[in-house]
Amino acid sequence: MTSIINVNLPQQSYEIAIAPGSLEQLGQQMANLNLGKKVLVVSNPTIFKHYGERAINSLTSAGFKVVSYCLPAGERYKTLNSIQKLYDIALENRLERSSTMVALGGGVIGDMTGFAAATWLRGINVVQVPTTLLAMVDSAIGGKTGVNHPHGKNLIGAFHQPRKVLIDPEVLKTLPMREFRAGMAEVIKYGIIWDAELFAQLEASKNLNQLRYVKPEVIDAILTRSCQAKANVVSKDEKEGGLRAILNYGHTIGHAVESLTGYRLVNHGEAVAIGMVAAGQIAVALGLWQQEDTERQNALIQKAGLPTRLPEGIDIEEIIAALQLDKKVKAGKVRFILPTQIGVVKITDDVPSETIRQVLQGM
Amino acid sequence: MTSIINVNLPQQSYEIAIAPGSLEQLGQQMANLNLGKKVLVVSNPTIFKHYGERAINSLTSAGFKVVSYCLPAGERYKTLNSIQKLYDIALENRLERSSTMVALGGGVIGDMTGFAAATWLRGINVVQVPTTLLAMVDSAIGGKTGVNHPHGKNLIGAFHQPRKVLIDPEVLKTLPMREFRAGMAEVIKYGIIWDAELFAQLEASKNLNQLRYVKPEVIDAILTRSCQAKANVVSKDEKEGGLRAILNYGHTIGHAVESLTGYRLVNHGEAVAIGMVAAGQIAVALGLWQQEDTERQNALIQKAGLPTRLPEGIDIEEIIAALQLDKKVKAGKVRFILPTQIGVVKITDDVPSETIRQVLQGM
Ligand SMILES: NC(=O)c1ccc[n+]([C@@H]2O[C@H](COP(=O)([O-])OP(=O)(O)OC[C@H]3O[C@@H](n4cnc5c(N)ncnc54)[C@H](O)[C@@H]3O)[C@@H](O)[C@H]2O)c1
Ligand SMILES: NC(=O)c1ccc[n+]([C@@H]2O[C@H](COP(=O)([O-])OP(=O)(O)OC[C@H]3O[C@@H](n4cnc5c(N)ncnc54)[C@H](O)[C@@H]3O)[C@@H](O)[C@H]2O)c1
Repeated sequence: MTSIINVNLPQQSYEIAIAPGSLEQLGQQMANLNLGKKVLVVSNPTIFKHYGERAINSLTSAGFKVVSYCLPAGERYKTLNSIQKLYDIALENRLERSSTMVALGGGVIGDMTGFAAATWLRGINVVQVPTTLLAMVDSAIGGKTGVNHPHGKNLIGAFHQPRKVLIDPEVLKTLPMREFRAGMAEVIKYGIIWDAELFAQLEASKNLNQLRYVKPEVIDAILTRSCQAKANVVSKDEKEGGLRAILNYGHTIGHAVESLTGYRLVNHGEAVAIGMVAAGQIAVALGLWQQEDTERQNALIQKAGLPTRLPEGIDIEEIIAALQLDKKVKAGKVRFILPTQIGVVKITDDVPSETIRQVLQGM
Repeated sequence: MTSIINVNLPQQSYEIAIAPGSLEQLGQQMANLNLGKKVLVVSNPTIFKHYGERAINSLTSAGFKVVSYCLPAGERYKTLNSIQKLYDIALENRLERSSTMVALGGGVIGDMTGFAAATWLRGINVVQVPTTLLAMVDSAIGGKTGVNHPHGKNLIGAFHQPRKVLIDPEVLKTLPMREFRAGMAEVIKYGIIWDAELFAQLEASKNLNQLRYVKPEVIDAILTRSCQAKANVVSKDEKEGGLRAILNYGHTIGHAVESLTGYRLVNHGEAVAIGMVAAGQIAVALGLWQQEDTERQNALIQKAGLPTRLPEGIDIEEIIAALQLDKKVKAGKVRFILPTQIGVVKITDDVPSETIRQVLQGM
């Protein structure tokens, strides 16, 4: 059973294909896209050990000339240095404008491969093969690519849409539990910002904190509804002129927490969970949202095994200072996405620092 | 007297404004664009000494908050390292998505500033203030930005259109003669590929090799007609899907010569001049172009004080090998732009190596 979701864009539309076992079809699917023969598969050693051979065999059988390269695993390697490595490989293997980079991995590999593809020869093809839940429902879709600056996350980057996103849910079986939960944070986010029906399905599921305890039809709903939400938003606002900002729900404070903990202690999804709790409480404090709804949100976050409190020892004033570094800052004002009901949010840059401080102190 | 030329693009159109003395209007002109308050002026020490103060005063008077930064002069600093410097400055000064980088300089500064702007926060504004003839008629227009890889020119880059191109011809007065001539190579190129009328005007001019010997009305025609040619081509094919490739006339072999001489001995314009001579002769050898027209082209190149022969000691086989590295290579085939008459070219990837070799041996 394959679900196809279209991302419709003025310059280049593409498909998200979700089907169990589809990693074996990678080559065939790419052959339909009329790409050049040369393919560079980018991954990391852990992921490559599990899925590299399958991906490469499929590509080779479909007639592609494949080389592969593994970057070291981890957010701390999401740097311009890693991109330079990819440039060197691209040069050595004479990648051409019609060539394709395939990102086989989570958001880290996806963001870097996308950025290298965006900037090699001023843009070559990229195909996203996400292997984490977070990458499947979020980072692989929508064309945001980039790396971190030593002093701030994702500050360096480009918009570069993939030619295809191929999701094989079976690869989630090897995903560490903590990473599964991190992806659930983004899924819950879609429930809050866009899809009350998805939120209800998540509430109805007995478990959310481990793949093997979540029913297949729930996983199916999680993937298709989340991808659909992201595709809808991106189709309406590719370059984040307005609406797309809602995808940053939970990310404003989330990014600050992630960066202050050195991108290690707290992972991206956990940081987003904490950020959603904070944003929910800010919305309540400003009289925009019901206390009851914020509790429903927080209950889901807990059911998914995600944190609802700030990590020990983090300095609240440092969080507030770090917010000023956010890409979304405009004329010094920090932009927040705040829920007004489940499935609906608004964008505002009118949150007093005092409110932020009080909410964080309570967490 | 101001000439305005529009570059019409689906996503973002912009103006090229050509007017003597207009550097003093930079701030005012930018104020009309509805940009954020923060501006980073990027230049190099030579150019900044001449024009930095004027640019900054104009911006400050118009209410912008200005910082400036000079990168070292020269093609060999057109690297990712320089871009990292710009990122650091952008971070230190908290550039936001609405902020603007101003490129005050030649093609090297323009390409780097454009690329830094393309990739900082996934794209902020850039305004091009070209100070070389080459940058005025060519590199500042059309959104190609980038840096060199240690093993190849412009291999790293992005398309990122400026919000405005402001051309003040008076800054050419301090431009070294050799640089003026280099720009003339691109002007002659437009005569061959697009504008037979411009070609005729160049033929009618007694001198072309030094600014002070060229009549003001000829300079005027050179700037407006060249910018118009580039704007027309870019408007029809922003991302080089087809037509835009004609702008690479003379660049295929030119880039190889430039790179094999270490980007030092031969500058970009001189390399393009050599490349046009070679392409013209290839076209003649393939029966596409008249010998007489290639001679008219070469006479113009000589009148502009540009080389028509390969530099001493260059290895022809190395040139042929280097062609394989060109960004325009597709399935191993090198793409050439060849004239069929003055003002008209065709794109072909069907040039036998033997023909290239023979033509180069004769140069
Ligand atoms: N581009 C966007 O729109 C966007 C959106 C959200 C997040 N992001 C970025 O995504 C990144 C986080 O991505 P992530 O959460 O996928 O983390 P990740 O890419 O670091 O992957 C998490 C870990 O799981 C391992 N792994 C991945 N797939 C596996 C599998 N199938 N089996 C076993 N192990 C596997 C990886 O080796 C890694 O150690 C951050 O850098 C964030 O900035 C980008
Ligand atoms: N982006 C594009 O579409 C495109 C097109 C053509 C060329 N280029 C690039 O442009 C670069 C070449 O640009 P360029 O020829 O302008 O060289 P450049 O930028 O290196 O400038 C040449 C020299 O002139 C000096 N200079 C510049 N303006 C001056 C002035 N007004 N007075 C005194 N000195 C001045 C500079 O300091 C420098 O030493 C190459 O890197 C090439 O790849 C890009």
